[in-house]
Amino acid sequence: MQTVFRGRHFITLRDYTKEEIDTMLDVSLDLKRKFAMGVKTPYLDYKTIFLMFFEQSTRTRNSMEAGIAQLGGHANYLDTSNMQIAHGESAKDTAVILSRFGHGIGVRNCFWEIGNKYIREMAENSSVPIFNLQCDLYHPFQALADLMTMKEKVQDVRRKKVSIIWAYATSHKKPISVPLSQALLFPRYGMDVCLAYPKGWELPDWVIEEARRNAEENGGTFTITHDEEEAYRDADFVIPKNWGSWVTNQSDAVVDDALEAQKSWKCTEAKMKLAKPNVMYLHALPADRGNEVEDSVIDGPHSIVYDAAENRLHTAKAVMTLLMNGK
Amino acid sequence: MQTVFRGRHFITLRDYTKEEIDTMLDVSLDLKRKFAMGVKTPYLDYKTIFLMFFEQSTRTRNSMEAGIAQLGGHANYLDTSNMQIAHGESAKDTAVILSRFGHGIGVRNCFWEIGNKYIREMAENSSVPIFNLQCDLYHPFQALADLMTMKEKVQDVRRKKVSIIWAYATSHKKPISVPLSQALLFPRYGMDVCLAYPKGWELPDWVIEEARRNAEENGGTFTITHDEEEAYRDADFVIPKNWGSWVTNQSDAVVDDALEAQKSWKCTEAKMKLAKPNVMYLHALPADRGNEVEDSVIDGPHSIVYDAAENRLHTAKAVMTLLMNGK
Amino acid sequence: MQTVFRGRHFITLRDYTKEEIDTMLDVSLDLKRKFAMGVKTPYLDYKTIFLMFFEQSTRTRNSMEAGIAQLGGHANYLDTSNMQIAHGESAKDTAVILSRFGHGIGVRNCFWEIGNKYIREMAENSSVPIFNLQCDLYHPFQALADLMTMKEKVQDVRRKKVSIIWAYATSHKKPISVPLSQALLFPRYGMDVCLAYPKGWELPDWVIEEARRNAEENGGTFTITHDEEEAYRDADFVIPKNWGSWVTNQSDAVVDDALEAQKSWKCTEAKMKLAKPNVMYLHALPADRGNEVEDSVIDGPHSIVYDAAENRLHTAKAVMTLLMNGK
Repeated sequence: MQTVFRGRHFITLRDYTKEEIDTMLDVSLDLKRKFAMGVKTPYLDYKTIFLMFFEQSTRTRNSMEAGIAQLGGHANYLDTSNMQIAHGESAKDTAVILSRFGHGIGVRNCFWEIGNKYIREMAENSSVPIFNLQCDLYHPFQALADLMTMKEKVQDVRRKKVSIIWAYATSHKKPISVPLSQALLFPRYGMDVCLAYPKGWELPDWVIEEARRNAEENGGTFTITHDEEEAYRDADFVIPKNWGSWVTNQSDAVVDDALEAQKSWKCTEAKMKLAKPNVMYLHALPADRGNEVEDSVIDGPHSIVYDAAENRLHTAKAVMTLLMNGK
Repeated sequence: MQTVFRGRHFITLRDYTKEEIDTMLDVSLDLKRKFAMGVKTPYLDYKTIFLMFFEQSTRTRNSMEAGIAQLGGHANYLDTSNMQIAHGESAKDTAVILSRFGHGIGVRNCFWEIGNKYIREMAENSSVPIFNLQCDLYHPFQALADLMTMKEKVQDVRRKKVSIIWAYATSHKKPISVPLSQALLFPRYGMDVCLAYPKGWELPDWVIEEARRNAEENGGTFTITHDEEEAYRDADFVIPKNWGSWVTNQSDAVVDDALEAQKSWKCTEAKMKLAKPNVMYLHALPADRGNEVEDSVIDGPHSIVYDAAENRLHTAKAVMTLLMNGK
Repeated sequence: MQTVFRGRHFITLRDYTKEEIDTMLDVSLDLKRKFAMGVKTPYLDYKTIFLMFFEQSTRTRNSMEAGIAQLGGHANYLDTSNMQIAHGESAKDTAVILSRFGHGIGVRNCFWEIGNKYIREMAENSSVPIFNLQCDLYHPFQALADLMTMKEKVQDVRRKKVSIIWAYATSHKKPISVPLSQALLFPRYGMDVCLAYPKGWELPDWVIEEARRNAEENGGTFTITHDEEEAYRDADFVIPKNWGSWVTNQSDAVVDDALEAQKSWKCTEAKMKLAKPNVMYLHALPADRGNEVEDSVIDGPHSIVYDAAENRLHTAKAVMTLLMNGK
């Protein structure tokens, strides 16, 4: 068990060793059990965190805000429309001042090619931990909760096939942070990771290289396919989800001819039948019902979306406790 | 005294027996006294509630948010513009996930013929208590605070005449939830309830039938009149307040000829003189001054609007404590 | 040390004696030390404050909200778009009801010739302390934090030259509350206060008269100049900052010919060289970079803007603790 977390930033799981991630999961399970038992967990009494959102949020905001309250602390929820960023406030100013006011800062900024830079600039200027609540590149809390959920379901995830599958959606241009974080993390746990997407929705080259290296070093595999059925075949877990095109860096107007041509990339009951009998369906939510997935799948017996969503709370509390406690 | 409250929903007072409501009032008074004395009341330490508002609020939001803080817990205030409901999130998804994240969920949704259905759908999918913070049909916290206030003023409310009187207003189309909740609750306490309105502003038939039955069973009376003066005559309490027309289900554009014809339905000093000398004036606030009521009445010696508003805090704390505590 | 604070309003430092302000600073330093040491300060456990903002805020909102959380209490952050003020709610109604719900109310309302009146009307109707979070006339928390910071830097501020200097900006029409509060406070501490501005940006006559009287009574000086260089010459502290024209009461459309003619009123490295070698640069933030000040000054070795900003937290906590504690 690793114990040196205090004061560190939480921007991507790439910054943490596998043993450190194991500790996060161990603490998450401990907090989950105590929550179920009604045992009080005043580990961050009187501590304060600022949560800055440049985009809407349900799960992330509420898991963090309720989470720290359950730990005895308090979150200032800040949507940027209430802030003076419009009055000329820089990331540096915000980071220096908020970090002097409290004990942690969470930031969601998904603007393409901007979000991660903004968060890193804050981290460079903050005297307290910065928590990435999703940026254009990473969504570490989501990947951590997904991993925790899969481990709860099958205990040993080694050599289990998990398929990260692109899906058609019209709702809005989604960042690549969820599939990117999953593609990097799951191979570290020896899983057989299959990444499937139509051409044009590639993840950055360095991600693929690092994912392959992670697989080699940890006894799993990392494969890419453009054949959707191959991704479903014999899968233990499937995660069909839309993401925007990083390669062409198209504008926010997502619905163009190239996208429309990929309407068939939808998670259906028929495709689910190609997978293992006990295959489990994951989605970070909210799903674009009817486009990304059929209702009968997401609402059906293979779906574990609510279990995964709940784990957002427990992992958030674990990471905050480890990084923000005063020993 | 009834003690079986833990884990129940609070959607309408119809779901609670009179003895249970008495317990709520008893706890409210106890919390009110402790608040005045500065005695700490850490009954919901580390517990969290989510407060979802589809409409603006002052009293309800602040009584709940400050209330749970005074009990040691925390409220996540959520206005729906910050949520991903626009990204396809259903009532079921929201209820399942938020209920796994915390210990209670409050919802205000006053959309006509939608609000109550939404809240009930949440209740069916929530593992923690759902609190109705006002819907198109019910406003149980308001009715409870009104009852508490009247009991404080006259102790024994039996056979006291309370008149629920429609009033002219232009501010916006108000839900029928306040008069409906009062019409159902007050007869259960043996009051002589008079419901007065111009034709076209009827409450639903089932409400009238249930209100009459409640009166019969509890030794009071329930009468309806379209003569405004009759409502004021010899009244102990008057509650003149606008509500929208349920019957014609008119659109949100409230100011039409039918409404304009009823401008005379205003609470005036002259009408107050028809009532008992110590008559008391109640209003859920904010009042449409000049339309619903003359300033000299709402600001005058018969007005107990602030006392009733304050009781929104104590009743909110009582109901949360009874339903959310961990014993 | 003065100890009679409980229950008083905090609208302007004019309402407090110098000895009382000394006590506020003493408590601020004590809380600052404890914050650095991680010592818990549960002085306002279970207490609640309402923070009403008619304008955006970063420092003020976050210092108050995080501050009371660190003291064990809770702030309801209210932006007026979430309130029923639009539904006819008066300052009196809001003050009476919120003061019955909790233990304090903070208000920011900077509307010209309205803000202070609104806050005073709330104070007249509130049974708990009202905290001025900036109005059209005063910004007492800012002036207090500035004073604290200067005292930390030079210990004895008597006869130190502090220059309050108007600066060009285009961002928005800023209230006069910051320079006004500084002009009144600093002479009480025997400082040599220099107020510099181009003609047309005068502060009200009564402010100048009172500032001069404060200087006379406390062994300092208060001078006015329209020569920017004179203000910088031999200064120990400079506070160059834009404010709107009170005299002409011009509209919110700030960029007119009269303003453009004053573009040269900018804090530059060249001007800083006229001051004492260890001169310190203060700004309430956010600064209008490039207009009010050159980047190399605000980011350079003379700038103490972050130290001053941090003290907003400690002074906020001190004032809340002194006025809201239950003994």
